[in-house]
Amino acid sequence: MILAKVTGHVEATQKSDELRGCNLLLVTAIGDDQELIKDRTYVAVDSVGAGRGDFVLVEEYFALHKERYKAMSIVAIVEKVHKDC
Amino acid sequence: MILAKVTGHVEATQKSDELRGCNLLLVTAIGDDQELIKDRTYVAVDSVGAGRGDFVLVEEYFALHKERYKAMSIVAIVEKVHKDC
Amino acid sequence: MILAKVTGHVEATQKSDELRGCNLLLVTAIGDDQELIKDRTYVAVDSVGAGRGDFVLVEEYFALHKERYKAMSIVAIVEKVHKDC
Amino acid sequence: MILAKVTGHVEATQKSDELRGCNLLLVTAIGDDQELIKDRTYVAVDSVGAGRGDFVLVEEYFALHKERYKAMSIVAIVEKVHKDC
Amino acid sequence: MILAKVTGHVEATQKSDELRGCNLLLVTAIGDDQELIKDRTYVAVDSVGAGRGDFVLVEEYFALHKERYKAMSIVAIVEKVHKDC
Repeated sequence: MILAKVTGHVEATQKSDELRGCNLLLVTAIGDDQELIKDRTYVAVDSVGAGRGDFVLVEEYFALHKERYKAMSIVAIVEKVHKDC
Repeated sequence: MILAKVTGHVEATQKSDELRGCNLLLVTAIGDDQELIKDRTYVAVDSVGAGRGDFVLVEEYFALHKERYKAMSIVAIVEKVHKDC
Repeated sequence: MILAKVTGHVEATQKSDELRGCNLLLVTAIGDDQELIKDRTYVAVDSVGAGRGDFVLVEEYFALHKERYKAMSIVAIVEKVHKDC
Repeated sequence: MILAKVTGHVEATQKSDELRGCNLLLVTAIGDDQELIKDRTYVAVDSVGAGRGDFVLVEEYFALHKERYKAMSIVAIVEKVHKDC
Repeated sequence: MILAKVTGHVEATQKSDELRGCNLLLVTAIGDDQELIKDRTYVAVDSVGAGRGDFVLVEEYFALHKERYKAMSIVAIVEKVHKDC
């Protein structure tokens, strides 16, 4: 999983069945100094109620859960990152 | 998922069974400034009726759905991207 | 999927069961100007009868199809690439 | 799998069901000279009791095990790396 | 799959169940000129009896085979690479 920041959202009415009813958020990967990394912006399905400006955990790759396909998803809202070094 | 633009299409008559009947579109990843990123062009199966010049969401990796393999796919046509920052 | 060119092949007698009987081709990713990209050469299983110099579609990642594992594969021979821009 | 070092941990109360009860560690990929690689920090679920400063093996991609989805995980604690060249 | 060279091995006693009894080898990706690529060293499970200095095929991503998860693996020992160009 990667650390990312919610930086926007996407409007799309014509979409595949798997994405119906999904909230599509723009997430930008953050680097070691918490800065947004250029050209590392993705679109992820929100499953935890994340919103604008939140730091989140994003599962970069697809998941297959209980015979159902799941797109790239936000899987947690990050409250604090503790760095040891 | 990544944001991309439909930049062409591919003709291929000799193909694997999974791709029979599929519309194979060229999609190029777009960067933070909406510009096309060099050498980030892929071929994706269209499942939502996307066409030339459309902005789309592409699932970068394979999907296994209901015991059937699905190649890299266009999963939505993007109408608007809202950026918060 | 990526666009690539068949640039060689690989001999390997000692291999895993999944690869028995498979034709292992060297494929090199091609860039926006159709040039070979340095250090983006992979080995893919051929499933469509591709040969030396062919332009092909390569599924970059593994596929699980009908309970059987499939390695990185050539999934189509490309006849023509149409670019809109 | 990649070699990485545990460089911190993450607090997140709002998370997807798959991550409930999981220990979320920051892991940073290490290069050929054992140095931490900039901007290659991920969040991985610990399944082997890894702690601060440990060298670990991280499975970069998701795993589907016994019909249950598993996020990026630490799969081993490395005691020694033997290099031949 | 990528072409790589076995460049060492890893000792790890504390590991996940999937890795028990597995031989964990260091493999370094090789470039178009057969040179080792910096910072592209991975750890792969050996399933074909590969040893120090062997050129091998490595399946970069996970495999799910017969309901059992398999980590990044060495899937063949390469005897000869034939390049056409």
